[in-house]
Amino acid sequence: MRPNHKRLLASALGISILAVSAGVFAQQAGAKPETLIKWRQSAFQVIGWTCGRVKLALDATTYDKEEVVKAASALAAVSNAGLGALFAPGTEQGKGWHDTAAKQELFAVGSKAGEIAGTLARETNELVKIANTSDAAAVKVQFGKVAATCKACHDDFRVKL
Amino acid sequence: MRPNHKRLLASALGISILAVSAGVFAQQAGAKPETLIKWRQSAFQVIGWTCGRVKLALDATTYDKEEVVKAASALAAVSNAGLGALFAPGTEQGKGWHDTAAKQELFAVGSKAGEIAGTLARETNELVKIANTSDAAAVKVQFGKVAATCKACHDDFRVKL
Repeated sequence: MRPNHKRLLASALGISILAVSAGVFAQQAGAKPETLIKWRQSAFQVIGWTCGRVKLALDATTYDKEEVVKAASALAAVSNAGLGALFAPGTEQGKGWHDTAAKQELFAVGSKAGEIAGTLARETNELVKIANTSDAAAVKVQFGKVAATCKACHDDFRVKL
Repeated sequence: MRPNHKRLLASALGISILAVSAGVFAQQAGAKPETLIKWRQSAFQVIGWTCGRVKLALDATTYDKEEVVKAASALAAVSNAGLGALFAPGTEQGKGWHDTAAKQELFAVGSKAGEIAGTLARETNELVKIANTSDAAAVKVQFGKVAATCKACHDDFRVKL
């Protein structure tokens, strides 16, 4: 693939915002599309698992700070791991664990998916900071921002499940 | 479930080593077995994805430190997220994305699975430290320790895939 084509594709995926280097992009794009789709579906399951744990902790009668820090840390690390590379060209359609739930609009030039991914990365990092230094009330506010970011992407770019 | 039963089950799963509190254990055990199995299969896929990225970076002609730190950070965070709770009683058999590949020996009293999970948590944390401060050669040595930990668990506790 010629460099200018790489740049075009990277731009279409909002790769610059996701901070995925061209090298990484090329490496992971070498994996089979169904493998990339499986990995991204798995990554979002881990995001769901860890978000669910933060929510459970916030709903519990006794706030378990250690649990929230642990769940939020995994949530933030996966959100910052470079998920954009898992939406490489060739993965617009196909089956990982199940048919992809990503709408075609996600892959379109000018899509806001990359921007939302950047927001997710920032808001989850902030959640870890707040979880380490603050109480349940502050965590709840920040967790609301994380959840709103998830919802924004689901509304625009995920087919109804 | 009575508290002494909780303790027995927690002991069988090496929960104390995995540092999963009884509260968390109870919360996540409230999820359906197939959901827990799906989450654990997803978590290990993310572990596979991130390990693969570290390996790719080590095999590349130019060492990409940023990529290794990012992949290792997600690897360590998931490894430290409390995976033990995803092996709760009731998940010895069943289907998540696919039939569980965990051998029954993993769930037996006195199983070393919890100990190995503790080693994975430590070795991956060490990988992040080394990735942040050192060069490819040092990362390669530590990555070998991580890979050996994965293999130890697969040899004893995963059915042949």
